[in-house]
Amino acid sequence: MSDKGGPKHVVIVGSGFAGLGCARKLALRKEVRVTLIDKNNYHQFQPLLYQVATSLLAPDDIAVSLRKLFRTHPNVDLKLAEVVSIDPKAKTVTTKSGEVYQGDYLVLAAGSQPNFFRTPGAAEHSFPLYSLNDAERLRSRILEVFEDADRDPKLVEKGALNFVIVGGGPTGTEMAGALAEMINSTMASEYHDLAVTGAKVYLVDHGHAVLGPFSERAHEYAARVLKRDGVQIRLGTSVKEVAPGHVMLSDGTRIETHLVIWGGGLMAAPLAAQTGLPQGRGGRIDVRPDLTVEGFPGVYALGDFANIPSPGGGALPQLGSVALQTGYWTAQHILYEIKNIAHFPFHYHDKGFMAMIGRNAAIAEIGEHRHELHGPVAFAAWLGVHSYLMTGVRNRIEAFIEWAWDYFSASRGPQELDRSDAARIDWGEDGDTDEEEKS
Amino acid sequence: MSDKGGPKHVVIVGSGFAGLGCARKLALRKEVRVTLIDKNNYHQFQPLLYQVATSLLAPDDIAVSLRKLFRTHPNVDLKLAEVVSIDPKAKTVTTKSGEVYQGDYLVLAAGSQPNFFRTPGAAEHSFPLYSLNDAERLRSRILEVFEDADRDPKLVEKGALNFVIVGGGPTGTEMAGALAEMINSTMASEYHDLAVTGAKVYLVDHGHAVLGPFSERAHEYAARVLKRDGVQIRLGTSVKEVAPGHVMLSDGTRIETHLVIWGGGLMAAPLAAQTGLPQGRGGRIDVRPDLTVEGFPGVYALGDFANIPSPGGGALPQLGSVALQTGYWTAQHILYEIKNIAHFPFHYHDKGFMAMIGRNAAIAEIGEHRHELHGPVAFAAWLGVHSYLMTGVRNRIEAFIEWAWDYFSASRGPQELDRSDAARIDWGEDGDTDEEEKS
Repeated sequence: MSDKGGPKHVVIVGSGFAGLGCARKLALRKEVRVTLIDKNNYHQFQPLLYQVATSLLAPDDIAVSLRKLFRTHPNVDLKLAEVVSIDPKAKTVTTKSGEVYQGDYLVLAAGSQPNFFRTPGAAEHSFPLYSLNDAERLRSRILEVFEDADRDPKLVEKGALNFVIVGGGPTGTEMAGALAEMINSTMASEYHDLAVTGAKVYLVDHGHAVLGPFSERAHEYAARVLKRDGVQIRLGTSVKEVAPGHVMLSDGTRIETHLVIWGGGLMAAPLAAQTGLPQGRGGRIDVRPDLTVEGFPGVYALGDFANIPSPGGGALPQLGSVALQTGYWTAQHILYEIKNIAHFPFHYHDKGFMAMIGRNAAIAEIGEHRHELHGPVAFAAWLGVHSYLMTGVRNRIEAFIEWAWDYFSASRGPQELDRSDAARIDWGEDGDTDEEEKS
Repeated sequence: MSDKGGPKHVVIVGSGFAGLGCARKLALRKEVRVTLIDKNNYHQFQPLLYQVATSLLAPDDIAVSLRKLFRTHPNVDLKLAEVVSIDPKAKTVTTKSGEVYQGDYLVLAAGSQPNFFRTPGAAEHSFPLYSLNDAERLRSRILEVFEDADRDPKLVEKGALNFVIVGGGPTGTEMAGALAEMINSTMASEYHDLAVTGAKVYLVDHGHAVLGPFSERAHEYAARVLKRDGVQIRLGTSVKEVAPGHVMLSDGTRIETHLVIWGGGLMAAPLAAQTGLPQGRGGRIDVRPDLTVEGFPGVYALGDFANIPSPGGGALPQLGSVALQTGYWTAQHILYEIKNIAHFPFHYHDKGFMAMIGRNAAIAEIGEHRHELHGPVAFAAWLGVHSYLMTGVRNRIEAFIEWAWDYFSASRGPQELDRSDAARIDWGEDGDTDEEEKS
């Protein structure tokens, strides 16, 4: 914090909405030089992962090269590396390959990982949907399940075409709608030799409605659309166990299935525990209203990685829009700090919730006065907002035109089954944390 | 061959240009029902693999879903399976999962694999470019090499940015040109912190010129363009050994490198040996002028999998256009057989060679009178022919517009580094076969 004159060094860990948002606002600012560290060389647009999983978009459509994004920003230096430790006192970040980066400011935005809540078998046998790798793995698995059944139709009686989605939040609901539609339209026409009508999609949630954070009208609308598309909704029940060939629900039901999709909750990435900083719900780092960590001036925690106090009490939800706003705000805060300008606490501008449930059916609750939109108008709003949020993502417009075209023509894009990637992601230990939904 | 009345069963192994061409011509023909077996659920457009490897196209741009292609063709049944044995006498095909398919006709079009000619270390340490998986692996490796050097610039002195391409045929030449251009334009602008000018591309061939099968003018033109882009051409020398950090050439030169790309030759897929059928050069199945195997009426071998006699002596080259024509012709031949119509031997219509060497520089030698085109006119022809050949590939037009746009704007598309896929492909034993080039 002391080298007078030269630009201050900002080290950002993670290039999700939060870290990327912060880096973009600091790009070309002569007061700072930025080192942005991520284990991937791309930013992934998480809200559309379920579209990759259901073959509506190609993986490359929702990923953007970080180097391309910062090509004309010489003050932003990218490092492709896995961060293994952080010393918030010394303000250093150490990577797996041994490099150490010391900053005048540390911005910790390492994101989340799925939270399986110690459910037996869930980590081993279910498919989460949080990263692009997850989405590609899930896409391959969906197609594989159909191909297996096509070769051996007897598998259908054993539940090979039953799909169980855990968690009725936006991720689970959007996935259920998209999967049901994929089965009803694409698969039914592409498998000449298989009784695709035997396929079933189950959506399991322990709450009293799907899309809990939305209004009651939204609950009803979502349930109606999902039922129309054949989704079996199981409310008030949770998953007790996931096994290779079935799941057990808390109400005693056993569902035979070869594919369980986990949309059940999130917790902070394991790096959070390693920092030694205070952790709140979901293992997230507790921050003050200005997003810095108590006792560590110049150390910020952002987005899903942080437990951000909400003015109304409790913490802000794990949403892309929260993450993006914390990123922008932190960049501004750092610039103010450097110039010794007084500043206010972070304030989240609630832009509302959105979810797409099925063909031409979406829900949007926009603004603080909660305008509720259902059906085609909401769908148009959904398209517009995501199109806006995808700024910087490769082929934003093209991807959307293509996607909309495929969507309305009921044709489907990139259905490649990647058989080479059989690697399981090691999620490490599951923390003992509360359930949180990600949208 | 005896079940009177019902449609004849054609079992096709492989959905490359040959197998897919055959299946498409038999689709909707009431005389036959087709079972098309492939280990992937997509057809890959091989001539553009180098564009995926150099991030100019996304993998999904050059892959087409087989189920989508045959959606409206109920007489074509797809099976996603790995074929492990073929009995040409019983006309049966057995898959790894144990299914057995018996045909009235067998069409064997299982393609090629790279031929390393027993070069020590080549199979273990070099990157071939024959499949979409190869292209994705190579893309990841190219980006990884740059990221490693960016983290640790000392690696550059150890040759981390030296790229060695083995084989000066169309694959090696196109790869060298595209890689040089990627380095000169994209990488130079995207790495703020790395001396990209230290990167070098070597193209090694044991012959006296690059693009051997082309004319002398083409040799000179290609060499001029490659040299302009900084490619180091090493002719009259072959690779003696590939090691993790270097290659040894037959002239005694040692080149430090972290990436060797193998475009050195092809041999038939290992399934060829398993059939027990007579094998010729490169392990390919010997066929008669009507593409059937001597002594096994109704058993055809096609494309790269077959050793097809050329009227001028020798065998036809391993080219996409040869494969496609054998596929179309075999379909017609089977229909004639069923109707007992007399037919003529297969005749290859030579459409000429094409290769793209660098920005706005291509070579085309078209038709039997060899019109030679170089430069922008050849480039336009190259674009047109590939656009035509890509028929059926997803987003044909969009992919090309996008590609052309990126190409001319010197911006680059999908540069995602897939770090999850560290699996090496096991090429099995290398046969002791002659060198063949693939274009």
